[in-house]
Amino acid sequence: MDYRFAARIRNAPESFLKQLFAVSSDPSIISFAGGLPDSDLIDVGGIRDSAAFIFEHEGREALQYTTTEGHLPLREYIADRYRRRLGIPASADNIRIVNGSQQCLDIIGKLFIETGDPIGIERPGYLGAIEAFSLYEPAIKSVEMNDSGPETHAFEKLVTDDRIKFFYGIPNFQNPTGRSYSPDTRKRVGEIISGTDSLFYEDDAFGELAFDRKPRMPVNKFAQENVILGGSFSKTVAPGMRIGWIMAPPEIISAFDVAKQAADLHSNFLSQKIINHYLRNSDYERHLKTVTSVYRKNCMLIQDLLDDMAGTGITHTSPEGGMFMTAKLPAGLSSMTLFKEGISRGVAILPGMPFYSGTGGDDMIRLNFSNTSEERIKEGMARFSAVVSDLL
Amino acid sequence: MDYRFAARIRNAPESFLKQLFAVSSDPSIISFAGGLPDSDLIDVGGIRDSAAFIFEHEGREALQYTTTEGHLPLREYIADRYRRRLGIPASADNIRIVNGSQQCLDIIGKLFIETGDPIGIERPGYLGAIEAFSLYEPAIKSVEMNDSGPETHAFEKLVTDDRIKFFYGIPNFQNPTGRSYSPDTRKRVGEIISGTDSLFYEDDAFGELAFDRKPRMPVNKFAQENVILGGSFSKTVAPGMRIGWIMAPPEIISAFDVAKQAADLHSNFLSQKIINHYLRNSDYERHLKTVTSVYRKNCMLIQDLLDDMAGTGITHTSPEGGMFMTAKLPAGLSSMTLFKEGISRGVAILPGMPFYSGTGGDDMIRLNFSNTSEERIKEGMARFSAVVSDLL
Repeated sequence: MDYRFAARIRNAPESFLKQLFAVSSDPSIISFAGGLPDSDLIDVGGIRDSAAFIFEHEGREALQYTTTEGHLPLREYIADRYRRRLGIPASADNIRIVNGSQQCLDIIGKLFIETGDPIGIERPGYLGAIEAFSLYEPAIKSVEMNDSGPETHAFEKLVTDDRIKFFYGIPNFQNPTGRSYSPDTRKRVGEIISGTDSLFYEDDAFGELAFDRKPRMPVNKFAQENVILGGSFSKTVAPGMRIGWIMAPPEIISAFDVAKQAADLHSNFLSQKIINHYLRNSDYERHLKTVTSVYRKNCMLIQDLLDDMAGTGITHTSPEGGMFMTAKLPAGLSSMTLFKEGISRGVAILPGMPFYSGTGGDDMIRLNFSNTSEERIKEGMARFSAVVSDLL
Repeated sequence: MDYRFAARIRNAPESFLKQLFAVSSDPSIISFAGGLPDSDLIDVGGIRDSAAFIFEHEGREALQYTTTEGHLPLREYIADRYRRRLGIPASADNIRIVNGSQQCLDIIGKLFIETGDPIGIERPGYLGAIEAFSLYEPAIKSVEMNDSGPETHAFEKLVTDDRIKFFYGIPNFQNPTGRSYSPDTRKRVGEIISGTDSLFYEDDAFGELAFDRKPRMPVNKFAQENVILGGSFSKTVAPGMRIGWIMAPPEIISAFDVAKQAADLHSNFLSQKIINHYLRNSDYERHLKTVTSVYRKNCMLIQDLLDDMAGTGITHTSPEGGMFMTAKLPAGLSSMTLFKEGISRGVAILPGMPFYSGTGGDDMIRLNFSNTSEERIKEGMARFSAVVSDLL
């Protein structure tokens, strides 16, 4: 039969994420295409101990329904960390727990986007955000990224001329490029958005993964009434428990609660309690230091190996944290060709197109450096280099 | 500042669920207003043992990202149970894991409803469904329920004349009334919907809670291409882990994957693995027998106590399973008045209005019988009876 799907689904761009997960699971392929944190660095023992404690002392409560807002002690931990680490006036009242930061994208899309509404996004930008927002049928406007963040003149034009509902950006170690906004750009973006009725959706899924472990000032600092700040434990504790959060002004939080409740009543209470206990009873700082030192080493290694290919004309970004970087391909080399040829020769990279709303990106690839060992990075990049040479 | 929320949120009906959870947590109030399964019957020890097993043997995998579809062994368990218990040709390929069956409502709304599209719902109908669908701005048409299910002539008219996108119903032990569709109504509804391009969304959150433990034939049996079947472990294992599922025809499943991935990538993998292990390694049938025998006893007790009030003109439904029943109030008694007066005197009931799209329901209340002990039911119903007498 012909199912009468809504236009938002009929027109949805075909997803690349699914193919991506499929590639990630074939062990013969060395993959730089995925987006997984390093499984070996997940503190399984620590999380297991926290789970055992929760089952022992709060099991009956953790397995029952709870409130939509999320576990108060966890929200307090997040608020306290914002206050101590970034010096921003955070309160548990303005924080809500969600199923990984991806759910924030869906709910914020639902709260603000009517068909045809203009929204802004970085170019290139996070593909999961493009997919989530697209289902609410906005007019997506994008702003070119350079090494210090989005072009601020173009950003200002989106706010003043297009009156975008919101701009979605990742100021710290962006997915896909690994770039960060410069301190000046953070301040300028905050000044531009402040006092308008546009919002800045600051996705900070990677902020805790700074290689130097130093905090970067969020855009939130400069425009609190206009900033929605999203965070996640997927990259720092464990993605499989799907726990993230949002911090936003009170009016937005009220609306958020309506949509979150309709979406799934509340996030997994057992996992909220486990993560809260884990954060308060493990050596979280040391864990983050371990994770970031491994990611830094991997990232530097890939950069060195790409530099060895400089003769081909390939260039790359130089992240200071996070899990991703991008490389610009030599003229005439298509990322889609490189993806297909790479797969057949045991190395996976991610073509740039899904990170571009509309057209673009075939001259760019994303490389993940968080889930491949040193040895496999060397072997994978050797395969990659051979494929590039052969294709040129 | 004035936040520019989308119309779907500006026009959202005010939620009652939030107030409901608040009332549920005040121990001085004996509450029949909530919708919680009995905390004392959650098999905390069994679930703890399954969690310990998963952490020991599959912890690293369970804490990592996984695929959008959901854990295959859990989907196979669900399919196998459908085949054995209901004799319907279920396959894991057509089953997806979600965050409790509430998330199905949101995603199905997103897949099918464009602004103004007609959909059908039972009258009274599940308030969480009304809230979830309302955010996609449908034209909600409702069909009166009687003791054998929705009026089939009115239902047929919705399909043939209004060409509704889908009809949402709970054939087993409905929330709020506790009523079930008769065998004839199930068959007739299936025949009416079959071969049309309308769908029947069969929410079976309560099917395993039959007091007699006998399976009821789903509408799915009579119209497989036109039925979306939703299920949940919230009422049978534990709500706090937020694990439910959907079974639907392949084309709908493909579209569902796009929306689920955009919504939150995938459901909590740790909890999926724990529940799968629990179902396969505990005495699940015995657990269900215990749960349903307690709920049956509670339900009968409330019915007896309401029958004692027959002189006031109050009447009630007679559920054969589930967690809820409704009572029709004597003429002139408002459920909202009864709610407010009850709260001040230590007993909470739920007014009928949130179960009615548009107006209606002030002559009806919902009573939950799954989360109150025999002793507290007696005391609570005594308070209730006194309030009713005083108000009349």
